[in-house]
Amino acid sequence: MNINVLSLFPPMFEGVFQHSIMKKAQEKGAVSLNVVDIREFADNKRQVDDYPFGGGAGMVLKPEPIFNAVESLTPNSKRRVILMCPQGERFTQEKAEELAGEQELVFICGHYEGYDERIREHLVTDEISIGDFVLTGGELAAMTVIDSIVRLLPGVLGNADSPVRDSFSTGFLEHPQYTRPADFRGWKVPDVLTSGNHGKVDEWREEQTLKRTLERRPDLLDKIELSAKQKKTIDKLKEQK
Amino acid sequence: MNINVLSLFPPMFEGVFQHSIMKKAQEKGAVSLNVVDIREFADNKRQVDDYPFGGGAGMVLKPEPIFNAVESLTPNSKRRVILMCPQGERFTQEKAEELAGEQELVFICGHYEGYDERIREHLVTDEISIGDFVLTGGELAAMTVIDSIVRLLPGVLGNADSPVRDSFSTGFLEHPQYTRPADFRGWKVPDVLTSGNHGKVDEWREEQTLKRTLERRPDLLDKIELSAKQKKTIDKLKEQK
Repeated sequence: MNINVLSLFPPMFEGVFQHSIMKKAQEKGAVSLNVVDIREFADNKRQVDDYPFGGGAGMVLKPEPIFNAVESLTPNSKRRVILMCPQGERFTQEKAEELAGEQELVFICGHYEGYDERIREHLVTDEISIGDFVLTGGELAAMTVIDSIVRLLPGVLGNADSPVRDSFSTGFLEHPQYTRPADFRGWKVPDVLTSGNHGKVDEWREEQTLKRTLERRPDLLDKIELSAKQKKTIDKLKEQK
Repeated sequence: MNINVLSLFPPMFEGVFQHSIMKKAQEKGAVSLNVVDIREFADNKRQVDDYPFGGGAGMVLKPEPIFNAVESLTPNSKRRVILMCPQGERFTQEKAEELAGEQELVFICGHYEGYDERIREHLVTDEISIGDFVLTGGELAAMTVIDSIVRLLPGVLGNADSPVRDSFSTGFLEHPQYTRPADFRGWKVPDVLTSGNHGKVDEWREEQTLKRTLERRPDLLDKIELSAKQKKTIDKLKEQK
């Protein structure tokens, strides 16, 4: 997969793109990451933004540098051009899976300001928001989306870290996990987990998965087709509350 | 404000913490950013994770290195210790504003694996998720949350970029913005914005704000106390659909 990022602050990407999974994914050839400086596509004053028509505070990103930067890439009519903005579609694991199937993505990251509306109307194919909060720019949002996509690409994660059993991939939140030491400062691991009884362990985990999801994210349960056994467990948990 | 981040991959933070707003905020003394390598607090094998009790794939972050790393900081009984995890409370602008009022924050970032449950039970004060998607680690989520907090600290943003008029701060999505050129490739700015009639501009923007919010995020309208005029405009917009 080819991923291009248009930004006014290319050095922001250095730490994230050169370490951990992103580094491995590039070394394995699963992804090629290309950061483009929007300023290089502005006129000779390097002016990327201007005052809004109609007045008001703040600056607005001009259309030309963004159009020019996207058009400087090798032509590909099939690529998705994604605008990171608070008004966009809320990013979810489903969207990550959808985008992981693409050949080429372009991310446009604004900074401080709004975007000229013509970028939205005539250049982008998708607008994505990672949540209802305000960031100084689209860079961190783009890195976040890219991380969630790259880890899904074939060969990037080892088997042990398979994406299949993640929270959200199963639809439920994960049950509590414990590791050594069995007794840490007097806080002990639940007996069932050290019992060696695999049937009991599975039962405990299934119940804890439902309990945690019910307590923290009951909305997720509405989206899942529950088995009769799961429904019964949930009813029991509700009574205990 | 003091912000400490516990991570297994400290270099991931370099690009983001050393550029743009985060750099400015540190130079102005508004925030001090401290990245702690969890591995330095593991036993002499530098082992930070171990197999889960009860079996299963994946690894679990051990409690000692995390407890030790937090306890290595200058004691402060009032600091918030925040676990970045998909099971946490959904991060919002309200939470950013709440955390921006604190004196010290600690962010714990896991990578790949789950956390030993005793970290949740006995060490952290908050669990935060930035959304329903899976990342390779908590680092990008922590950077995102930190960015949204730091920009709210006094003196960090200039007046022109005041956080007051952001999307989500007003409760609505922002109206479309346009800047020069007035005609870009034949796509023109709406006449009203170049008319010089401020009353008409304000009216257009108010209507576009409501229209965009209604089209993209009708859920936001339920949370706002609308004026009679706004209600009337919304009714009109609904009829036009």
